Amino acid sequence: MKEFFPEIKNIKYEGPKSKEPLSFKYYNPEEKIMGKTMREQLKFAMAYWHTLCADGTDMFGIGTMDKSFGGSSSMEISKNKVYAGFELMNKLGVDYFCFHDRDLVSEGETLADFHRDLEVIVGIVEEQMKEHGKKLLWATANMFSHPRYAHGAGTSCDPDVFAYAAAQIKQAIDIDIRLGGSGYVFWGGREGYETLLNTDMGFELDNMAYLLTMARDYGRAHGFKGDFYIEPKPKEPTKHQYDFDAATVIGFLRKYGLDGDFKLNIEANHATLAAHTFQHELRTAAINNMFGSVDANQGDCLLGWDTDQFPTNIYETTLAMYEIIKCGGFTNGGLNFDAKLRRASARPEDIFYGFISGMDSFALGLRLAAKIIEDGRLDEFVKSRYAGFETGIGADIKNRRTSLEALSDYAFSLGRVGLSSSGRQEYLESLINSVMFG
Amino acid sequence: MKEFFPEIKNIKYEGPKSKEPLSFKYYNPEEKIMGKTMREQLKFAMAYWHTLCADGTDMFGIGTMDKSFGGSSSMEISKNKVYAGFELMNKLGVDYFCFHDRDLVSEGETLADFHRDLEVIVGIVEEQMKEHGKKLLWATANMFSHPRYAHGAGTSCDPDVFAYAAAQIKQAIDIDIRLGGSGYVFWGGREGYETLLNTDMGFELDNMAYLLTMARDYGRAHGFKGDFYIEPKPKEPTKHQYDFDAATVIGFLRKYGLDGDFKLNIEANHATLAAHTFQHELRTAAINNMFGSVDANQGDCLLGWDTDQFPTNIYETTLAMYEIIKCGGFTNGGLNFDAKLRRASARPEDIFYGFISGMDSFALGLRLAAKIIEDGRLDEFVKSRYAGFETGIGADIKNRRTSLEALSDYAFSLGRVGLSSSGRQEYLESLINSVMFG
Amino acid sequence: MKEFFPEIKNIKYEGPKSKEPLSFKYYNPEEKIMGKTMREQLKFAMAYWHTLCADGTDMFGIGTMDKSFGGSSSMEISKNKVYAGFELMNKLGVDYFCFHDRDLVSEGETLADFHRDLEVIVGIVEEQMKEHGKKLLWATANMFSHPRYAHGAGTSCDPDVFAYAAAQIKQAIDIDIRLGGSGYVFWGGREGYETLLNTDMGFELDNMAYLLTMARDYGRAHGFKGDFYIEPKPKEPTKHQYDFDAATVIGFLRKYGLDGDFKLNIEANHATLAAHTFQHELRTAAINNMFGSVDANQGDCLLGWDTDQFPTNIYETTLAMYEIIKCGGFTNGGLNFDAKLRRASARPEDIFYGFISGMDSFALGLRLAAKIIEDGRLDEFVKSRYAGFETGIGADIKNRRTSLEALSDYAFSLGRVGLSSSGRQEYLESLINSVMFG
Amino acid sequence: MKEFFPEIKNIKYEGPKSKEPLSFKYYNPEEKIMGKTMREQLKFAMAYWHTLCADGTDMFGIGTMDKSFGGSSSMEISKNKVYAGFELMNKLGVDYFCFHDRDLVSEGETLADFHRDLEVIVGIVEEQMKEHGKKLLWATANMFSHPRYAHGAGTSCDPDVFAYAAAQIKQAIDIDIRLGGSGYVFWGGREGYETLLNTDMGFELDNMAYLLTMARDYGRAHGFKGDFYIEPKPKEPTKHQYDFDAATVIGFLRKYGLDGDFKLNIEANHATLAAHTFQHELRTAAINNMFGSVDANQGDCLLGWDTDQFPTNIYETTLAMYEIIKCGGFTNGGLNFDAKLRRASARPEDIFYGFISGMDSFALGLRLAAKIIEDGRLDEFVKSRYAGFETGIGADIKNRRTSLEALSDYAFSLGRVGLSSSGRQEYLESLINSVMFG
Repeated sequence: MKEFFPEIKNIKYEGPKSKEPLSFKYYNPEEKIMGKTMREQLKFAMAYWHTLCADGTDMFGIGTMDKSFGGSSSMEISKNKVYAGFELMNKLGVDYFCFHDRDLVSEGETLADFHRDLEVIVGIVEEQMKEHGKKLLWATANMFSHPRYAHGAGTSCDPDVFAYAAAQIKQAIDIDIRLGGSGYVFWGGREGYETLLNTDMGFELDNMAYLLTMARDYGRAHGFKGDFYIEPKPKEPTKHQYDFDAATVIGFLRKYGLDGDFKLNIEANHATLAAHTFQHELRTAAINNMFGSVDANQGDCLLGWDTDQFPTNIYETTLAMYEIIKCGGFTNGGLNFDAKLRRASARPEDIFYGFISGMDSFALGLRLAAKIIEDGRLDEFVKSRYAGFETGIGADIKNRRTSLEALSDYAFSLGRVGLSSSGRQEYLESLINSVMFG
Repeated sequence: MKEFFPEIKNIKYEGPKSKEPLSFKYYNPEEKIMGKTMREQLKFAMAYWHTLCADGTDMFGIGTMDKSFGGSSSMEISKNKVYAGFELMNKLGVDYFCFHDRDLVSEGETLADFHRDLEVIVGIVEEQMKEHGKKLLWATANMFSHPRYAHGAGTSCDPDVFAYAAAQIKQAIDIDIRLGGSGYVFWGGREGYETLLNTDMGFELDNMAYLLTMARDYGRAHGFKGDFYIEPKPKEPTKHQYDFDAATVIGFLRKYGLDGDFKLNIEANHATLAAHTFQHELRTAAINNMFGSVDANQGDCLLGWDTDQFPTNIYETTLAMYEIIKCGGFTNGGLNFDAKLRRASARPEDIFYGFISGMDSFALGLRLAAKIIEDGRLDEFVKSRYAGFETGIGADIKNRRTSLEALSDYAFSLGRVGLSSSGRQEYLESLINSVMFG
Repeated sequence: MKEFFPEIKNIKYEGPKSKEPLSFKYYNPEEKIMGKTMREQLKFAMAYWHTLCADGTDMFGIGTMDKSFGGSSSMEISKNKVYAGFELMNKLGVDYFCFHDRDLVSEGETLADFHRDLEVIVGIVEEQMKEHGKKLLWATANMFSHPRYAHGAGTSCDPDVFAYAAAQIKQAIDIDIRLGGSGYVFWGGREGYETLLNTDMGFELDNMAYLLTMARDYGRAHGFKGDFYIEPKPKEPTKHQYDFDAATVIGFLRKYGLDGDFKLNIEANHATLAAHTFQHELRTAAINNMFGSVDANQGDCLLGWDTDQFPTNIYETTLAMYEIIKCGGFTNGGLNFDAKLRRASARPEDIFYGFISGMDSFALGLRLAAKIIEDGRLDEFVKSRYAGFETGIGADIKNRRTSLEALSDYAFSLGRVGLSSSGRQEYLESLINSVMFG
Repeated sequence: MKEFFPEIKNIKYEGPKSKEPLSFKYYNPEEKIMGKTMREQLKFAMAYWHTLCADGTDMFGIGTMDKSFGGSSSMEISKNKVYAGFELMNKLGVDYFCFHDRDLVSEGETLADFHRDLEVIVGIVEEQMKEHGKKLLWATANMFSHPRYAHGAGTSCDPDVFAYAAAQIKQAIDIDIRLGGSGYVFWGGREGYETLLNTDMGFELDNMAYLLTMARDYGRAHGFKGDFYIEPKPKEPTKHQYDFDAATVIGFLRKYGLDGDFKLNIEANHATLAAHTFQHELRTAAINNMFGSVDANQGDCLLGWDTDQFPTNIYETTLAMYEIIKCGGFTNGGLNFDAKLRRASARPEDIFYGFISGMDSFALGLRLAAKIIEDGRLDEFVKSRYAGFETGIGADIKNRRTSLEALSDYAFSLGRVGLSSSGRQEYLESLINSVMFG
């Protein structure tokens, strides 16, 4: 088999002191952290699109990276992408991958064309998965790139487009089942509106829920046991997207009775675009039992669009892993690098630097989150902060055995009530630094 | 009775050509627009706090406006505020008002002190309401200004504070019932967190829901027939507030079974702080049958805090009134000017300029929204945009009588599916201008 | 000559009551406003790139609009674009246009290829200009789309790229002179940095200034009498762009001695991305005698990227025209529609709706700005606000004939000094509405 | 002498493994880093206002912290603040402090009153400085809190207010000279506008420059040898502040000939409010030879106002210290903690936690910045990135001995010019983590 990255050897763990750029400093796959190996805790996945398709194009410039992998025809390129992708996963030790249907093959004129080509490539993917022991974290259908989806897919004003989306979803679920995928994602990049002046928002949301309901029913009827996910994002490309953030999506899922089958795929950069921290979105999912999977990237809080950078901020990865461990870790989900290289990082080795950077950042985050938990001071502080609810009137509140009148009577009996404790934020932030850098 | 604004006469409608600053150009209370008088359509309310209490203090400067209304003792000031407020409402022709408990009297050392003083002032308010025919749009309890609420009220880590909040709510509901208020608002300014490092978010949200449940039960048991409202706001003063936006609050209300009694009080500036348009928040409430009342002010999209300006942007007021008319207009709710003067607008007449500006802006907005509806082209465009769902596969989708397989089969039969219609945003925006300025 | 928009007739002024979508409601070219015809006051220009090249591609989707204009080869497409563009200008009554070198022809392998093709197309442009009486508002070189410019052009770390940029600028200035252009624009989309970790910012800025200096010297030596412009933008595509905003650019021009030849090309959406209002940027340019030209589009304050929408907000166009009139109107500059259709506005007529909407919006803005000036109350208020500087200590300050000690002595003599006047913002906003909608 | 924090002992360095909250983990004052002791490198300063005056008040709540320090009269409180402040500096080992005139004593009715009280307190400060060996980093005059400054100080529309500001500045400079201060700061919190509708921006800026010019002349004439600083901030409290960011201020200083005497006081949170990184602002100052002093705090990129938190983000402190070391370190400036406790951090020990957290964060930042420099790979990468400018055409460019024509000829000779090198951002970010956490 032709090698696509001949100059790159398998990336190995060399420890934090190594100055070898093409090595892991923190990710030691078989090392156990909190009872599980790092590879089990982190479940890294390669995003097919950014890794094998994105070429550095942006709104003001054309591609800087060649992603043909030596192919000349469309199908040859598609085939080479599969091999290049598995080589890359092998060299990095990444166990999972994720894709949109359109990442695998170019869209032809008709669904039939597309179906035909897809079958060929899925066959190769299946064979490579077996050969290399790789797994599909989740699949999805790209229902946002083609002009037909300019008005949305499940929220399109054109029933034919709605039907077309249904066909793509069916096909993608079929492939997902065939490849043993443990998740299926809906990212509604065009499900939203550009202007309320032309939009029947209520009708569109009802339709979107109907499409998801049919997809759920189809998947369950055909043996899909994994999780369905919605990936929240507030905007971009669409001015306003219906899946704004975790809380919005959770409310939507409950309203339409989809909360039993759907969880959330949380992306860091989408969180900040919605004016939340990554941790906030993870926590919101967790307390609603809807934590599912993670798109691991990083944004830039001073920029108003999705930069999809490889994650490098260790505060973010540490606090994210803290949330993930606290809600029990991944089951069907994992850490998918929905991340792309900066446009000027156009050399072949840069993709390895990107993954190494991202994997090491989450590996270090895992180590430090474990250290925070093992240190115990943070959790103890939180527990003690709410200790008042374990006894007396606090316990009555916690156990829901009081009333407005009873509480009012109690409060009248208290005399002056002031601020009784400190939130101690400065101390806690200092504590976190002390554990992280200590 | 002493006059507090002796230099100001009753503000009258003089029409758009008038150059008299102290006159209405667009608000003609008894003129009928779309079948109801303007005063019925708009239901203007005075916010007690901004109008009678706020003195121009900001984070970097002390007050520029004297709000003692000639009083010297705390109770004398409180009394004078009532009279000044009713004089102001009378001169402006504002029919409703809204208040926090702490707007009426200063908080004493204990709840008993506060209760005692409040009874005195509420008596005067009640008498003034009868005398002048004014109505209470809604009441609320201030559970954010006192240090005890630094950790929240329903989400406090201190059960005594939770109980104290319950007592304030009970008292405020009692007053609301006594004064015939048609609404009761919860604005959770401190219900949220400064840092997740010290916060049990799930526990806090459950507690907050419990407090609201007890309040609802108490109100209903004691004859409150109006609407309970939550007023969403994403942040400020707290770093992250649980009532982030309309969608978040609606999801919360459904989760905890409060959606039968609660609606939303939407504020324009809170919408934009949450990265939504005002119209988006109104539409979100409407399609969930939770449109309740409006805090009518205006923010500054280039500033990241709540500027609470008197509304003057006619696009905003027009599109807001369009949403309000479209969802049936106000029932228990109204347009409360949650707006304050700029700090340098410190002359007594400025408060009249502010109200005139805000009232005229919404009056013009009402006129123009009616004009857009009567023109019909906008609504017709939206209707025709979704016409595909009235027949064939579209009707099957709309009537929920298809499936993923059936839609997929249909889509495969179509051949190439492209973008079939234009969203025509540029035309629609031009149309709106044409109706507004025509 | 083949017609490219056969279904569209010349767009005529029909006045505000017209319901014909393909007519002007406010733009009446020969009508005089404040002593000049509207076409002289507004000097509308077509942006070649958005109008003739942009196809609806965004970061998440491919093009929705065919911009081949029936051509099949690259050069045929380029030729057809010229004819289509002049037809469009003729039908709309737009007198000016602006282009990047790369808008005219595709870049070939080498500069020589590019030069050769460019000469052909420029010849056709020149001929069309004569035939139709159209003028070139400004030209520019696209030094951001090609991969070579991923690190910048004048700020590139590669001297060959710097030289290549110089060659493009030389060529573009030559064409500009040949076509009688009255301006030459520098928009530094890649002049900035992605991360300071790899950037020598001081060196890059010095180099950028050198490139501009050489361009200025070359242009002046070869007979270019127009204005050089820098177009500020804070970010996008680059994380941080050196030409952040008007104040930054003005400081840069002064530092490097370029302020005698350079002015600013202000774009509305770039202003808001830099957290300023459009008016602020215009005023900043004006008070530094650097007001030059305008990119007339509109952004969305709730989105963090350049949406480049056709302008429709009449507040913005009115206040912009107020600033422009106040600083003497356009000399070499004009109003270039740096605006593109929404991605779903993909029908051929939409481009006309877009231009009509934008032209009418600025025409109405011109009418209303004139009305505000003729009304006089706003200007009078501002004048009277500073009247204290006409006499006494105020005149001493204004005439720079006092000192810190003298002012201190004076202040000590005053006793209590408080807030003496109101800024009257609420009244002024109300006044503006009254003039605009009266 | 009475102790104000009797429960707190002197804070000592205990090293990174210590779990004692009231100890330094990273700040070891006499340890040498890059040839200077940490105390010399960091020059920590206490901000009088936040530390001794701010009581937790925010726009929605009253104070949570008692800052009377046991005093009952205004003057007694002022005196106790001095003693409490010096006790705090002693216990923390902070060598410098900064103040506004109004931090020291409450403003009386007249300037004479204020002057009288100030003299008393300044006397005590002077005596305490001698006794404890503390130094004044800089002084400033508060020209934004009093209502008179609602329209600005140097930009006020009222000449009496301008004169009043001059008197305050004179007095503050006199005190600064008396106390041996090495800097004098202008922070123009009200120098800006709320609306352009009422503002003559050009006149206001000229006046502001005149006030600064007079202040400079007065200071220099009376022996002030330190640096004058402007502290940029884009907004808050004012909608638009003239000292928007570093680039804007530098341009202003150059325009008015003040660049010889003025430098910048850069604040981290003001940088992000202006959409820049802290590092960007430091670099901008440095490359213009205007780096002066630093307000060391931290903001929250998801909030749109100045949170003034104690700095805890080690990325920020490391990269800031990298910039500071690279431009030669502090001369007259230092690191002033312009930081306040969160409102719920209301216990007396919290102020120590805050300072420890901030001092340790910058101490760790210093250690890590030194480590990055000593590691050398980052600097080497940047140097090599621009190596092309050392020879051939690159050297011609660098030495300014070429022209547009010559460069064009050279470029034409090159054939195809593509992207020749990678910016390698992912690798560099990974490298930084590796050095920071290695």
